[in-house]
Amino acid sequence: MPSIKDVADLAGVGVGTVSRVINKNPTVKPETREKVNAAIKKLNYIPNEVARNFKMQKSTMVALLLPSIWHPFFSEFAYYIEDALDKEGYKLMLCNSGGRPDKEIYYLDMLNQNKVAGIIGITYNEIEDSVSTDIPIISLDRHFGKKITCVTSDNYAGGRMAVMELVKAGVTKVAYLGITSSVYSEVLLRKKGFMDEAEAQGIEYVTYEEHDAVYDDDTFFYDFFSKKEHEDVNGIFANTDLLAAKYIDKAKQKGILIPKDVKVIGYDGIQDNKLFRPFLSTIRQPVEEMARMSVELLLRKIEGETLDQDIYRVPVMYREGETT
Amino acid sequence: MPSIKDVADLAGVGVGTVSRVINKNPTVKPETREKVNAAIKKLNYIPNEVARNFKMQKSTMVALLLPSIWHPFFSEFAYYIEDALDKEGYKLMLCNSGGRPDKEIYYLDMLNQNKVAGIIGITYNEIEDSVSTDIPIISLDRHFGKKITCVTSDNYAGGRMAVMELVKAGVTKVAYLGITSSVYSEVLLRKKGFMDEAEAQGIEYVTYEEHDAVYDDDTFFYDFFSKKEHEDVNGIFANTDLLAAKYIDKAKQKGILIPKDVKVIGYDGIQDNKLFRPFLSTIRQPVEEMARMSVELLLRKIEGETLDQDIYRVPVMYREGETT
Repeated sequence: MPSIKDVADLAGVGVGTVSRVINKNPTVKPETREKVNAAIKKLNYIPNEVARNFKMQKSTMVALLLPSIWHPFFSEFAYYIEDALDKEGYKLMLCNSGGRPDKEIYYLDMLNQNKVAGIIGITYNEIEDSVSTDIPIISLDRHFGKKITCVTSDNYAGGRMAVMELVKAGVTKVAYLGITSSVYSEVLLRKKGFMDEAEAQGIEYVTYEEHDAVYDDDTFFYDFFSKKEHEDVNGIFANTDLLAAKYIDKAKQKGILIPKDVKVIGYDGIQDNKLFRPFLSTIRQPVEEMARMSVELLLRKIEGETLDQDIYRVPVMYREGETT
Repeated sequence: MPSIKDVADLAGVGVGTVSRVINKNPTVKPETREKVNAAIKKLNYIPNEVARNFKMQKSTMVALLLPSIWHPFFSEFAYYIEDALDKEGYKLMLCNSGGRPDKEIYYLDMLNQNKVAGIIGITYNEIEDSVSTDIPIISLDRHFGKKITCVTSDNYAGGRMAVMELVKAGVTKVAYLGITSSVYSEVLLRKKGFMDEAEAQGIEYVTYEEHDAVYDDDTFFYDFFSKKEHEDVNGIFANTDLLAAKYIDKAKQKGILIPKDVKVIGYDGIQDNKLFRPFLSTIRQPVEEMARMSVELLLRKIEGETLDQDIYRVPVMYREGETT
């Protein structure tokens, strides 16, 4: 049986457009409508009738799309999202979407069919620029060129803050460590903040990154420690806590003492107790606040409100641990 | 507006019974039916008509009720549950039910209305003994007197295994540390296994527990270390990893060296890397296997199959860390 995605592909439009055609949404251009209807006919696509009958019924379900609920940052986020939704009488549907665009399309389709009232999370797929910013989706990450409302921690301020704190702790040369991805764009601001602050402070700096498609722990750090220009680095800003912990592990094996020889700051704040060490110095994302704000903004969109901003940046905080 | 719970309370029956009366289920006794109908009339309770109309439609949604998705054990479990459900075309609804019986009742009600196809998780509420074991619920924990199918790690074998490993590591007197709860009953088998194996090995042992309602870290460990009979304990089995980590933290403050002076084994296996220390020696729950088995059994129940066991115990494994 052909799927809505097959129809979208054949018509050369997005899944959302196909749904709007099916649901007779008047905002679709006549020529687009014709292309979609032709594709529906050609493929013999049968829309979910049951879902269409429920169209006017208000769903009280919100889908949460996360790369993996297993990651401590996302499980904390999901905890507060569920709590905030529950207070408003909404239920949470959970999807580990990581690396599976088909799963995401399924939920976008549910949204178009009114089977879910809204979506919160990280979306990987291209959503056409023609989509209204009022569509009830809140993204945890801004993707350039997309008009989805986004709630994020203040990554730029976090990058600057990390350098400020490293300098305060006495470092003279800082390195930015990052795993890059073609998907996460907002995270790049951590690097920009880092560079801008290093320049403002007049301190020497290097950036060292690898793409997640080829990233490998051992190679990454072997190469890092091999480079002559990294020898006098005595301050590290890793763009996640996990990467900071990996650096510390590898540095120890090379006899580098943390924080005596090198001071390290991570990003996220995933540790919620001091039982497991090292207890990292980190730029803490305000997870609870980000979750509650995501729900609040989503519900306002569900109610039909047009929000006054595209990006909502929640302030971060420096949390001193034992690595600076 | 009165809720189904109000009706159940007034009629002196469970929520499930009210649902069965509303849905004209013939298994309800006439006198029970009368009581329920009287309560419905008195309270002017209006059942969810929309839901009733969908009654015959098969839901593809499974609710996961967990105390808190934020806990690493539960977030790993949820990860695999979602993965297994997705492969079968089911969607996951997530609920942090911890300490909120009303949330649980809501989902039981959804199950009775066929708005969810089944429930997996930890249920706190009394479910009447009259409920058929075929009801599509899989519990992660056995509650004595309840007939819900249960998937659990082999807690008893885990308790025995912990003592065996401690003895192998050379300890001469072992202590069981536990936080008890009136809710979790299956966990008690960790203690029983511990005691039986200590007796089988002819080794001295003590058990030291506190109820979670009055549990406080500082008091618990202060009292533990104060007791004369605990002075020569050189092996600890803590019934969770978190409790093991807390013991190690407090023991260090008293100058006790782990594992030189005291060897420690936890239960769960929540650490998935060695970046954060101590890396605990532990009885690892086979989380992925438990999750996949839960889904498999639930789907068989949804299909109407009668399972041949009430309790499915998945074997545990000892994972050596740096604390033994």
